[in-house]
Order: sequence, then structure tokens, then C-alpha cells
Amino acid sequence: MKAAVIGGTGYSAIELIRILHHHPYVELETVVSHSKTGNELQDIYPHLTSIMQTPLTGLDVEEICHTAEVVFFATPSGISKDLLPGFLNKGVTCIDLSGDFRLKSRESYEKWYHHEAAEESYLNQAVYGLSEIYSEQIRKSSFISNPGCYPTATLLALLPAVQKGLLNNQSIIIDAKSGVSGAGRGLSLGTHYGEINENLRAYKLGAHQHIPEIEQILQHESGNPVTISFSTHLVPMTRGIMCTIYADMNSFKTTKEMIELYEAYFEKHPFVRIRKEGTLPSTKGVYGSNYCDIGFYADERTGRLVIVSVIDNLVKGASGQAVQNLNILKGWDETSGLLHVPMYP
Amino acid sequence: MKAAVIGGTGYSAIELIRILHHHPYVELETVVSHSKTGNELQDIYPHLTSIMQTPLTGLDVEEICHTAEVVFFATPSGISKDLLPGFLNKGVTCIDLSGDFRLKSRESYEKWYHHEAAEESYLNQAVYGLSEIYSEQIRKSSFISNPGCYPTATLLALLPAVQKGLLNNQSIIIDAKSGVSGAGRGLSLGTHYGEINENLRAYKLGAHQHIPEIEQILQHESGNPVTISFSTHLVPMTRGIMCTIYADMNSFKTTKEMIELYEAYFEKHPFVRIRKEGTLPSTKGVYGSNYCDIGFYADERTGRLVIVSVIDNLVKGASGQAVQNLNILKGWDETSGLLHVPMYP
Amino acid sequence: MKAAVIGGTGYSAIELIRILHHHPYVELETVVSHSKTGNELQDIYPHLTSIMQTPLTGLDVEEICHTAEVVFFATPSGISKDLLPGFLNKGVTCIDLSGDFRLKSRESYEKWYHHEAAEESYLNQAVYGLSEIYSEQIRKSSFISNPGCYPTATLLALLPAVQKGLLNNQSIIIDAKSGVSGAGRGLSLGTHYGEINENLRAYKLGAHQHIPEIEQILQHESGNPVTISFSTHLVPMTRGIMCTIYADMNSFKTTKEMIELYEAYFEKHPFVRIRKEGTLPSTKGVYGSNYCDIGFYADERTGRLVIVSVIDNLVKGASGQAVQNLNILKGWDETSGLLHVPMYP
Amino acid sequence: MKAAVIGGTGYSAIELIRILHHHPYVELETVVSHSKTGNELQDIYPHLTSIMQTPLTGLDVEEICHTAEVVFFATPSGISKDLLPGFLNKGVTCIDLSGDFRLKSRESYEKWYHHEAAEESYLNQAVYGLSEIYSEQIRKSSFISNPGCYPTATLLALLPAVQKGLLNNQSIIIDAKSGVSGAGRGLSLGTHYGEINENLRAYKLGAHQHIPEIEQILQHESGNPVTISFSTHLVPMTRGIMCTIYADMNSFKTTKEMIELYEAYFEKHPFVRIRKEGTLPSTKGVYGSNYCDIGFYADERTGRLVIVSVIDNLVKGASGQAVQNLNILKGWDETSGLLHVPMYP
Repeated sequence: MKAAVIGGTGYSAIELIRILHHHPYVELETVVSHSKTGNELQDIYPHLTSIMQTPLTGLDVEEICHTAEVVFFATPSGISKDLLPGFLNKGVTCIDLSGDFRLKSRESYEKWYHHEAAEESYLNQAVYGLSEIYSEQIRKSSFISNPGCYPTATLLALLPAVQKGLLNNQSIIIDAKSGVSGAGRGLSLGTHYGEINENLRAYKLGAHQHIPEIEQILQHESGNPVTISFSTHLVPMTRGIMCTIYADMNSFKTTKEMIELYEAYFEKHPFVRIRKEGTLPSTKGVYGSNYCDIGFYADERTGRLVIVSVIDNLVKGASGQAVQNLNILKGWDETSGLLHVPMYP
Repeated sequence: MKAAVIGGTGYSAIELIRILHHHPYVELETVVSHSKTGNELQDIYPHLTSIMQTPLTGLDVEEICHTAEVVFFATPSGISKDLLPGFLNKGVTCIDLSGDFRLKSRESYEKWYHHEAAEESYLNQAVYGLSEIYSEQIRKSSFISNPGCYPTATLLALLPAVQKGLLNNQSIIIDAKSGVSGAGRGLSLGTHYGEINENLRAYKLGAHQHIPEIEQILQHESGNPVTISFSTHLVPMTRGIMCTIYADMNSFKTTKEMIELYEAYFEKHPFVRIRKEGTLPSTKGVYGSNYCDIGFYADERTGRLVIVSVIDNLVKGASGQAVQNLNILKGWDETSGLLHVPMYP
Repeated sequence: MKAAVIGGTGYSAIELIRILHHHPYVELETVVSHSKTGNELQDIYPHLTSIMQTPLTGLDVEEICHTAEVVFFATPSGISKDLLPGFLNKGVTCIDLSGDFRLKSRESYEKWYHHEAAEESYLNQAVYGLSEIYSEQIRKSSFISNPGCYPTATLLALLPAVQKGLLNNQSIIIDAKSGVSGAGRGLSLGTHYGEINENLRAYKLGAHQHIPEIEQILQHESGNPVTISFSTHLVPMTRGIMCTIYADMNSFKTTKEMIELYEAYFEKHPFVRIRKEGTLPSTKGVYGSNYCDIGFYADERTGRLVIVSVIDNLVKGASGQAVQNLNILKGWDETSGLLHVPMYP
Repeated sequence: MKAAVIGGTGYSAIELIRILHHHPYVELETVVSHSKTGNELQDIYPHLTSIMQTPLTGLDVEEICHTAEVVFFATPSGISKDLLPGFLNKGVTCIDLSGDFRLKSRESYEKWYHHEAAEESYLNQAVYGLSEIYSEQIRKSSFISNPGCYPTATLLALLPAVQKGLLNNQSIIIDAKSGVSGAGRGLSLGTHYGEINENLRAYKLGAHQHIPEIEQILQHESGNPVTISFSTHLVPMTRGIMCTIYADMNSFKTTKEMIELYEAYFEKHPFVRIRKEGTLPSTKGVYGSNYCDIGFYADERTGRLVIVSVIDNLVKGASGQAVQNLNILKGWDETSGLLHVPMYP
């Protein structure tokens, strides 16, 4: 199966390219880069020398539709909403890694993203690609809106409990921490080495565009309105997201009970790993891999549940999950091309 | 004024020594190190070469009482509880940086620290050295129990609101993040470079010994029982603590109102700096300095207040505050020897 | 083919286990750990949860010889010299990642390693497993002494020029820099996070045990005595080695000429990549992979050649090359199980 | 004494401002920033909140000449060559931290800096401010060209031996490593966190503009032409430079002899510290301070001397030395305002 990647020189794209390189059923045919057209991938990313000589091309929709069966959009927000329909309408499978089709409400998108939203008909078609939760819908779709990195870590950690009504939905607080690669390869003072190294920074409190994405799914799955507190922090490391989640339990369950519940829930989902009682996940435990590790602490003193969830933001938080969705959609083994052992140390 | 430091080769001690070196009124006379007796400081810490030739000595209580007017205890927990009374009883001013005299309840100490507690009479004498809050008591005391690093960052951020009854005390959640120097210089897998670099780790959930310390003060200041959620995370950096604090407001106040309230509260306290609306603190903003920077986000959507508080764990979180307490106790300017500009970048 | 790893909980071992997990022809049957017998791998290394349930066993030579066709020794120096002969004599293929069989001279080993050396007969049997240079000998052997990390980066960079007599052998200076994982998982102040982060340290000048290893090969390949300057530095990062090598050229060759010469030399060796003129390698370009990237600068001003060579110390510098050697020895494709794309960023 | 800083928002400037803040004899009156005119320093650098309310102003030569007795130029190369004469001619003491007046040869400047050079008459007036070596000339001057960071670390390490003719000048090789702050606060892919963290990079081999600066001084002090090999590497840390220097000795001296020679040479220079035999400096040993630590290894096997020299690139490598030069020039104690204890850890 031939694939194209649009937006080919960002960090998500390059991670997608790394994963697809070893995929048993996919061949990467075209890499489109607006800013680097005419170069080869290895000129921009020398680590790919002798591995890929792929030229970076300009966007030729006709040509791509002709050669590719699936197109991944690894573009900044505001691009794929206009671009993707042209591919979709020609029967090409589309997987969008940007936020353009995640929010069902145009109003909400425009409030949080500060762009014009995509057309409603396309918003309605897009299946939210949280692989473990929506595999049924993904299987039947040819248009996936891949979840954001924070929502992936958050929702996998919350949904089993929320679906069962175990938590007070209005009490949910998510303290999220991310490595710097989540901010992409674009230059900014906020990703300048001297500003970030040996520094820990809180940012975008109450303003992060992943808030409505998380709330939309929590509301849909609980059937009730949910308003979350969600804070983001930039950690001096390249990869990794950790979400520490706090919620009041409607009736107290022990750590052990929560673990059993989650183990059962994710029994057939190899990429979610539940940590043993008394241990907690760390981001390095999933480094470079598609795993999401989740640990629990049910606090008898406060009656609160604390869930700690980690992913590699570029893999399960972006490109790995995109490939996982393609696997599901195509009926391949969900883990095809994704069984990297986390790199440690 | 002559000073002695006991426990002289840990990170807090060495930071204390750095600060005292430039203190206008204090002369460091004796550095006691159990494990390194017979060496010079500069053998253990080559960065002190040509700055200090201080020999590391064994413990000689008589001799120290004879020469020193103030003794700092930078010992691991469980040491000063036995050692300190011997100095105190001879009229020496004692400042304890360990946790041995922070908890008024012996039972609580023994539950959280897993040692036998200090004698009740000494627990009762010790003044809790949160400088900005208890300066009155510090001024009259000669025995200070210096606060823990996390409690310092947490309590400065919470007390103005808690004292005024603005928060639902049972809703307080503290998501705390620390650099690795907080774990000291002792070797452990948890401070081994390969395990920590490019990694973010949650640890000791619900079990950190700073929990009862924070609750004791919050209860005392609010007059009501307070049970907190408190989670700790290890961040791949050397210095810095950030506490992100969540609490329901009893009646909503805006970010601006909170800022004004805190600015007024800390008006005469130069080491607490309130960040402007729309900005949040980062640990590097206080690097190597005695400042505590506090920022606010009052979330209209949830009715919750988010407070972000940062300190350098080795300075305001340990040795800097110890010196600040000495300054207060002696009636010197509170900032003597402590006006280091934060090091940036 | 069944394999055993002895010394199974060090960083080299765990990297070997990661690589073998995806190897098409090898099945890891036994992992021996002296210190962790009775645990499972995933207890010690949680990132392996659900990937490997391998129990860590004590050493049972009989049993291993019965089940394994190849044994990897990832033990500290001084262990395999006594242990390995027992396996070798029973016809098991042995690949030693320690330094015990690298030096042909017992005297030299004892001088640099401060242990008693292995028996001469075994030293004579061991083939030095620098894969690209000694593939002929490796192919015929069943006992490989895997090169050190620094020697791998240095010798691949030097041998083509040295074999052709292009350099003044007495002028060779190697300024080597390594990430911290090279020092292993054992605790020491020199690998304590607070001492290493945001620090650059020179160590073991003129005393590193890789000096005689490099000289032995350079002498053998040049036919003349070679004495090198070799300095090592610890860089605040986990993985990666860079050797910056300086040598006087016997007659000046341009950067372009050197590149052409090396490209021809390594034409059939996919793991050595020669950088284009005007570009230089960086350690991240080979992160997590078995590549060795080499760049050149021929300095007309000084008549000196500068070669910059990088590897991932745990892969090409240890476990990856060990697997490459097994591939060669067994007649499999040299790259089997080793075509990881470097992880970037 | 009143001072002005031009180029006030770069990392060198901000470090200069930190140092001047505690200087006993200098008051910082004016900070000129082209790009940030109209802001306050604390808006750009929040760590200065409550410490400095200094407004950033546009350039008004008249006004500055009226108020300031000394002007520091912390501008990018190519600026002060045009700007500085206007101040100098009005009798203002000028200290230039850029490279504009370091090279006496206009031709050389234009070759290495790719700008037009300053006027010859000003090049001739400028005194090269390597404080320990040229204090006599500095004392009599009012126009100092402050040395580059690499040249400072290199020349302090080499000059005592070169002046005595102990080294083969044509054999000198300098392998230099720097933290990232040396590249300033300007955005570039080469200072983007994701590209630098967990990476070690060689750059600008044979092309660094500090090469002619080092050679000019070595030639001047030895009386003979000197051509050096000089390689630069970017290390994933914020502050610190290490130069590892190799040179053939004309007649062999032991490590001990070299140490004695250097200790005598720098006896009256408190900022140069010679490490004991068997120990080597690390960058963290001088972190945030004006010290230059130098260690030696005289290699009997090769007859070569290895010198390891470290500085904090922003202090002794830039702003600290600028203040040291001002102290010398004004006849104040050389260490005024500069006795910061290195920050450790």
C-alpha cells in the first residue's frame, strides 16, 4: 500500500516516516514539504542518510491521488481543513494529525484555535482516532482525525472510569507535563535551548486547545457535561508526556480495584499497560514506543483517585497512533510496524 | 558572628556555605562532616578551591559551643533530634534544616518518617521557620525548624488565600515537581544519570513526608482540618521546584483580584514576587536565588483557582531560608547576604 | 537459534535484549543475572512490561550449554576471562562484550585493567570483532571479543587512512567524548545526576584502558609502533560517543579526496556512513542505531586531517556490533535485526 | 561611576547586568536595546522582576556620553566598529565585548568575520583585554577589546608555556567544547532544544573566527608564527567552555613541573586556579563565576602535554572579564563585584 505524507519536515512527520520505514504493508511514496521542496529528506535530516533518498516535493493533489492510497497530514493547524477534502473526495484514505477535524463544534474550534473551522460536513465524517476506544468506528472509516497528544494520554487514563460512572466528572483536574518536541521544529524563544534547559515552565493555563477536545469526548462518553481543569507544563526533555489526573470517586475504590478494572478494560489492547500496585509510570518507560503506561493511587485520606499516564508524544501521541489507526482501518494486525521496544536508557 | 554547619558535605550544606561566604555578619568557623572528617572542603568540592580551605572536622560539641553562636544542622532526618538539644541547652542558636522538629505531633512524625520522634519539649520549642509568615515568632526564638522545600513553595502560595478563607480547604490539590538536587548527594538508582535524564517520573504518591507538614500549617492557619492531595514528580534538571496548586474558591475571585490580594499581603516581603496577570513563573526565574515567584489563573469555567509557585529548592527551599531566618532572628536586614540575582540563562 | 545473555541487567545487556527481541533468527532463552536472580526482567526494567516476562536466573553452565547456541557476556571486566572458556569448550559460540579478551598481551591487560589476564591460549583464539574490518576472521570464528566503544568509533575512522599509510602514525591525537550510559548502571558519584547534568568533565587522561586496544590494532594494521594521545570527556547526555581525531598527513589530501577514499573503503558496509563535504556528524544522527557516521576536514593551514566519528555507544559501541558479529559469523545478512532508523529528535 | 550597556537583551548583556548589579563602584544607568526599546528589562527577563525596573532605551549617543563614564558594547559583530568611535572620541571609556576590535589585521577580520573591518586607527588603540596577561596595558587604556570566550580559555592555558618556549608552537591542537549559551539568544535551528538536547555536535571546523584571535596572541607572545588546529563542539548544556589542548613539549616536563610553573605564573591572579596533580577541571567547577580552572597531564608515552582549561563562557568568557578589565583600568581591586562562589550543583 502506497502512502504520502504532507508536511514532511516537522517532528511528527519525521517520526511517521521512521515508523512507516519498517511497516510491513506500507510503502512511503511521496513526502510533500512546502518549505523544503527540491531537497532530499536526508539533506534536512542527516540521520536518514543512506536510509531514505526520498525527494521532498511540492503539493500535487492529482499526482498523489494517483499514486497513494493513504495520505497523512502532518501539517500545522488550519491547513488540512482546506486541503484534506480534495483527497477524501477522490477516495483516498485520509489521516489528519492536526487538530482541524477533532472538534465537532465549529464554534468551539474557532474559539480555541483562532482560525476558521472546517466545513461541518467534513467534521461530521471524521472519526476520532483514539485507537483503543473507537476501533469499531475506525474500522469502517476512511477519514481519521488523529487525537492530540495530551488528549490521548488523558482519555486513555480516564475513559474506563468515566464510562462506568466512577468519578465525579466535575472534579477532574489534569496536570499535564510535556517534553519540548511537542512544540515542533519551528523556532521560538519558548523552544530555544538556553530558555528551556534546566528550567520548568507552566504555560497556556486554561487556554490550551486540547481542553475542548478532552471535554468533548468525556461528555460524549459520560452523557453529561464535563468541565475540566487542565494545566500544561514544559519539561526540559525532548520526548514524553505525563498526565497526573485527580478526580473525586463517587464511591471509594482501592488502587487494587482500579488496577483490576483497567486491566480488564484494556485486556485486548496491547499498547496500554497497567502498572502494578505501588509502582508508577515514567516517560522513559515508553520512549520511542507506542505504549501508554498507566498507574494508580487511590487515596483513602482524600477519597480521590490519582491516575498517572505516560506516552511518547511523537509516537502514541501522534505518528504511532496514526499508523495504529491505519492498521485498524485496513484490518491489519493493530501492532503492525509498531512493536518497538521502548529505548532505555 | 561565628557559625558552624553540621552535615557539611550534602548539597544543602554546600549551598549554605556558598551563601554564608558572602554574608556580611556571619563567619563560617566550623564545618562538621561525619563521612569526610580530615579532608578539606575543596577536596570534596573542587569548585571551592582557593575560596575556602576549611577543614572538615568530626563532631566536638564542647568545642563548637565554645566558638559558634549559631549552628546549622544540614543532616539527614533522624540525626538532629538527638544532637540539637545538646547545643540548644548551652545557649547556642540552632537552625535545623532537617525534618526532625517540623511536626508537632510525635505520632505523625513516626508515621511519615519511620524514625522515633524528637522529645516533645523540643518539638514545642521549635519555631517553624517559614520566614514571611512567622517572622514575629522567629524574631523571638533561638531554635528554628526550617521548612521543607515543597512546603515552602506550597504554603507561601496558599496561606494568604487560606487565612482569608477564600478556598474550600478540602479541595486543595498540589501537583509538585522537583529537580533532582532535592534528593541530595547520596547515591541511588533514582538519582543515577541514565535513569533520570530525558525522563519524568512520579514518585511517593500519597506518601511524601511533606504532606503532614503542609497540613499542619494549613490547619493551624485556617482553624479547620485540612486534607490535601499531594503528588511529587522528579524533573530532569538539577535545581528548582514548581508547585501547581488547585483549589475551589468559596466565591469566585478573578486572577486580577487574587494578584492584588497577594501583592498586598507580601508587600513588605521582598523575596516573594507576584507575577503579572497573563504570565506564569518558571523555575529558572529564581535559579540560585532566594525568591519565590507566584502566578495565578482563576478559571471561570471551573470556579477553581490555579496557583503556580516556584523556588530554588536549595535556596528558598533550604539554605537561603535558613539564612533568612537567622537574619530575622538577629534583627539584621532580612535580605543580608541573600540578594543574589537569579542566574539566567 | 537460541541465545543466552550473562550479566543481564546492565545497560549493554538491556540494549542487547532490545535488539535481540526483534532479531529474525535469534530467540533469547536465558538471561543470567547474579545480582537479580529470581526477579523478572520487567521488575528491574519496567519498560519491558508485557514485552518480556523472562525470569532472571542464576548461572547454570550445564543448562545454558544445553539450550543455547550462542552466549553473550555483558559482564564487568574480570568475569568472562574465567567464565567464558567453560562455554567455549563445550562448543557454544561466545561473544564477549567485556574487555577481557581484547588485548593480546597479558602484560598489557594487567597494566591497564589491574586484574589478572585471561589465559594466553584463549587470548589467541579470540577474534577482535570490529565488524567492518575483520569480517573474514569473524566468519570463521566462534569466539568473538567485541571491541570497546571508543575503539570502535576511533578505528573505523582511522583504519582506512592508516592502512594506506596516509598519516603520520606518531601524530595521532584522539579527543573522545561520551554520554554517561557508557559508565553503566552501577552507582557512583561520577554518574550521579547532580554532578553530571549541566557539567562537562575530563577524566582518566592517559589512563583509559581503551588506549592499548586502539594502539594494538593501529600497530597491527600499519605494521609499525603507534603511540596515541587519547583523552576522554563525560558529556551530559545519556547516549552517544564522538571522537575528534587529529593526525598529520604524510602528503596533503583534500577533504574531498578523503571522503572519496572512505566512501570506496566502506562501500559494502552499510553501517558506516561518510558525511558530505562541509557537513559533520552529530551523535543524535545515530541515536539508537548501529550506524557509525564519519566526517572529514582536511586543514590546508596545518596540513592536518581532522576526522569526526560518532556512534551510539550502546549499539555500534557494544550490543549492536555484538549482534552484527553474530550475523556475520552465522552467514546471515549483516544487518539482520539491526536496521533501526536513528531516533530523531 | 555610571555605566551604560548597549545591546542589552542578549545573554552576555544580561550577565553583565547581573554582575554590575552587585558591583560596589558601578551604577548601571542606561540599557540600550535596539529590538526592545520601550520595554522594561523585567518584561524581557522576568527573573529581574523587582530587582531592576530599568527601561530599555533607543540609542542616544549624546545622552549616554553625558551620563555614562563607561560604555559596554554587547552587540553582535559588525556593530561596535561603527558605533564605538563616537563614544571614545568624547572621552568615554569603552569596553567592547564583540569581536570588532580584536584582530589587528583588517584583512584577517574581513576574511574570518565576513564584514568590513573597523578603521585601522581604532584597531591600533584597542587593548586586548585578557586581564591576567595584559593588566599593564589595560591599566593605561580607556578602550578595551574584550577577548572571545574560546580565546580566553585557550590563551590562559597556553601562554605561560608558550612565553617560556616550552612547546612546539606548530604542534598546538585545541579541541574546544561549549555550552549553548555561547550562541546567544537569537533563534536558529542550531539552538533549538529538540536539535541540541541529548546531542553532541561538531561545528565550524577550521572556520571559527576565534582562530585568528588565538594565533595573533600566540604569535605575539612567542615571536614566531603559530598555526593552530582548532575544533569546536556544541555540548548539551547552557553554560561552560572546556578547551582540551595538546602540544608537543620541546623538552619533557612532568605534570608536577608544569603545575608548579603555572602556579608561580598566576600566583597574583586570583581568578586562575591550577588543579592539583591527578585531578582535572570540570565546567561546573566555575559555573556562574569568573574563575578559569586549568589542569595538566604530561604524557610520558607521547612526550605531549595535555592542558584542560574551563571557564563559564558568559562570565570569564565575556561579561565577568569585561568587569575585571574595568576594575583594572580604574585601579580598583581586580576582583570587585566578581567574587561569586561557583554555583554547585
